[in-house]
Amino acid sequence: MMPKDAYDALIKEVREIAILRSCGELLGWDEHTYMPAGAAEHRGNQSALIARLCHERFTSQKMGDLLAAVAGSDLVKDRHSDAGANVAELKRNFDRQTKLPSSLVEEQARTAVLSQQTWAEARKKNEFSLFAPFLKKTMDLKRQEAQCVGFKEHIYDALLDDYEMNETATGVRKVFESLRDELVQLVGKIAGSTKKAPVEVLERKYPRELQEKFAVQAAKAIGFDFHGGRLDVTVHPFCSSPGAGDTRMTTRYDENYFGDAFFSVLHEAGHALYEQGLNKTDHFGEPIAQSVSLGIHESQSRMWENLVGRSRSFWKHFFPKAKAVFGDIIKDVSEEQWVFAVNDVRPSFIRTEADEVTYNLHVLIRFEMELAILTEELSIKDVPDAWNEKYKKYLGITPPDDARGCMQDVHWSAGLVGYFPTYTLGNLYSAQFFEKAGQDLGDLNAMFAKGEFMPLLHWLRKNIHSQGSRYTPRELGKKVTGQDLQAQPLLHHLKKKAAELYGV
Amino acid sequence: MMPKDAYDALIKEVREIAILRSCGELLGWDEHTYMPAGAAEHRGNQSALIARLCHERFTSQKMGDLLAAVAGSDLVKDRHSDAGANVAELKRNFDRQTKLPSSLVEEQARTAVLSQQTWAEARKKNEFSLFAPFLKKTMDLKRQEAQCVGFKEHIYDALLDDYEMNETATGVRKVFESLRDELVQLVGKIAGSTKKAPVEVLERKYPRELQEKFAVQAAKAIGFDFHGGRLDVTVHPFCSSPGAGDTRMTTRYDENYFGDAFFSVLHEAGHALYEQGLNKTDHFGEPIAQSVSLGIHESQSRMWENLVGRSRSFWKHFFPKAKAVFGDIIKDVSEEQWVFAVNDVRPSFIRTEADEVTYNLHVLIRFEMELAILTEELSIKDVPDAWNEKYKKYLGITPPDDARGCMQDVHWSAGLVGYFPTYTLGNLYSAQFFEKAGQDLGDLNAMFAKGEFMPLLHWLRKNIHSQGSRYTPRELGKKVTGQDLQAQPLLHHLKKKAAELYGV
Repeated sequence: MMPKDAYDALIKEVREIAILRSCGELLGWDEHTYMPAGAAEHRGNQSALIARLCHERFTSQKMGDLLAAVAGSDLVKDRHSDAGANVAELKRNFDRQTKLPSSLVEEQARTAVLSQQTWAEARKKNEFSLFAPFLKKTMDLKRQEAQCVGFKEHIYDALLDDYEMNETATGVRKVFESLRDELVQLVGKIAGSTKKAPVEVLERKYPRELQEKFAVQAAKAIGFDFHGGRLDVTVHPFCSSPGAGDTRMTTRYDENYFGDAFFSVLHEAGHALYEQGLNKTDHFGEPIAQSVSLGIHESQSRMWENLVGRSRSFWKHFFPKAKAVFGDIIKDVSEEQWVFAVNDVRPSFIRTEADEVTYNLHVLIRFEMELAILTEELSIKDVPDAWNEKYKKYLGITPPDDARGCMQDVHWSAGLVGYFPTYTLGNLYSAQFFEKAGQDLGDLNAMFAKGEFMPLLHWLRKNIHSQGSRYTPRELGKKVTGQDLQAQPLLHHLKKKAAELYGV
Repeated sequence: MMPKDAYDALIKEVREIAILRSCGELLGWDEHTYMPAGAAEHRGNQSALIARLCHERFTSQKMGDLLAAVAGSDLVKDRHSDAGANVAELKRNFDRQTKLPSSLVEEQARTAVLSQQTWAEARKKNEFSLFAPFLKKTMDLKRQEAQCVGFKEHIYDALLDDYEMNETATGVRKVFESLRDELVQLVGKIAGSTKKAPVEVLERKYPRELQEKFAVQAAKAIGFDFHGGRLDVTVHPFCSSPGAGDTRMTTRYDENYFGDAFFSVLHEAGHALYEQGLNKTDHFGEPIAQSVSLGIHESQSRMWENLVGRSRSFWKHFFPKAKAVFGDIIKDVSEEQWVFAVNDVRPSFIRTEADEVTYNLHVLIRFEMELAILTEELSIKDVPDAWNEKYKKYLGITPPDDARGCMQDVHWSAGLVGYFPTYTLGNLYSAQFFEKAGQDLGDLNAMFAKGEFMPLLHWLRKNIHSQGSRYTPRELGKKVTGQDLQAQPLLHHLKKKAAELYGV
């Protein structure tokens, strides 16, 4: 078979698998939005079937043959051409998936179900000992997975690579270490400041309809396309894209707190803008029209949530609109109070509720814990103590129990090991991209203050979204910013804001 | 392969195909409820892929081999045992689908898309000549389909059988003819009555929220299980079951007319109760847990909509509740006025808006037209005139144009030929079942007046729903009622009501 014919057949097959997978994506969205409770068991069967059919087709002999037929041909010589990037990324996924014996995949799936059930119970009862055997089993299986996949340097690399292509433990550690001490110091300074954010202005009664109206207004203003998307309500906010022209985000409304829904909408809208900016019209299902990594995805959500949405200039434009929507509720609140309130910094136990500064320390703790557990430097029984020590050391607080400590997140019970670093990688990339966008576009704050968000969006579209998986995350960062991944832009941003608001 | 092993493998395969098909069902539901407009093209690709995968697997060599391996074995000797009924129905479907060349199926699909587009345009412009070539092509293809499938007596039988297993043109004609003259006579008598239904009481301003509240109350009262279902809003009401424990109905709200939403909810709830009563927990995807035909499905929807929902006794219970929900809106309305208003009879042009009496005449006209077109007794160009003559003859009115005449329904443009009779078969079965239920259970009206609908539902569950496709529709009717399908029960019901309300 000629390489060109093999490539065409490969893309045809990949596209069909992607369409099938997108049906599974809709099943997932529906499961969390509108599915009646009685359908849960059947939905499990549907999702499992779609996942199996996709896996079977993606790891088939046919795929292997087609990939082999194009390998080394002129067509794929340029790693960053359409064909070169597509084939490289497909080959990487094919190798990973075919290296895993189906017995291991099945055992992981089975363990994940039991482990999540047990985790939920253990968390409720606050009994780590219940969860411990499942955490041990999960980590054992992850070690087996890493051995099957293979790695050059650190066992962690084989797992991390699944979420962040080509990233390594060494690479993460290097950049995280330059972040850690500075953050710890900053948190300490802020805690010592006499200035306190007036968070009570956010804790008033905000009717759901008004919150929704205002959030939709903001999502539209930053460019979310409702013609090709929706906003619905779920227990946990998420963004899902069940097809070309179809990107759906969800949020939840707390009528006694403004911040929850609004910032989660900005966050999910950031993910959604990335999905809406991928070239799915022409290349649906091909890697060049798919997001490249969780870290880069998170860089988009965190940029709109924090760098844009918590900026003074954003509220210069939006606070008068908030006043118009919420009327008497915030009649007595000044813009200055509002901006300070949405930028409150204080150490807390739960990562998902953490502010912009302390958030990364939660992530660093997970990363250090995962490394220690995987390499068996830390035994499972010692996890709670080690966890609590780190919280004391980095955040100055000690979790009152393991439910609010090492059992707070679903990730470990779900087998998501090597996943946490992508949250902070996202924050790092977001600051680095944002700094470069400012250099390229001029005064972003002046634009935001006038409600002009399209220059930034178009810059992201051109430099990041439209690239899909053409480059590895690190390559993309370098190509866009001219710099290696680094902590400085994020630290600069956080320190500058702390100086302004807390005077530290 | 031993028959038992082959049977087990067959059921496993059939179940998996059904799960896959149920994913397609969800795609369809979402398309009409929440899908953003921009997703339309991708949704087409998703639905087409699922349909093709299901078709390929259902018509595969594997299916043929498994069916052959169980054929004639002791396992399937009893046509009405689980295995006997399943294999008979699967074989019937397999034969039908494998007899159709894929070139014909593809041409039909392509023609249907173009034909529906042209129909919509022709209807808008009121120009039958635009639609005529597509109607001709569609009928040509349906004739080819019938020839491939084969038939014993009449070409129509091959098409009708696809919607109403084992039904024939002769069978339909016989029972329809005993209905026609009596209905024409009844319509005439009612038109001549001095009594007129006070329809203005339904044409007041009914706020959407109140309509929904009341409709949900009624749906719950007749047994619709919201734990395994939902009610949403669409342009055209429908019922969809995308899985075990998952039956969803939709309606639309006209704030200036009470009847539209309420009776469509009762209608769709009737379909939904059938779906919720099939034994999907144990036998999902097997014919014995699937509805047997469109006619029997319609018998359930029409029973709850008309025989129950428009009865005096139903409103004995529900009218006080309506008064509580709608307050001042119907403060001045008496129960007597209300019951008369929801039973208004008057000839009209559009089938979907027709009352209980004239409805069947619309269907009879379609049936007679289809027979004449298929056998080429009637040429396409003469369709509008023939249509209008029949409306004059049976309903005493002449459509003002073809848009409200022979182009009013999507069916013909979509290739749904042989489908219309099932609407009236449904009405006939519903009356016959209802009469028998009354004989078995005692005074149904006394029960309804007290809000007791469960005895009827349980009777339907036991006698009809739980049977799935174990019997052909005619067999089921005979088994349940002890009688052949006949027009008398429906005529008796309609005449009795006309006598009460119109004094004719």
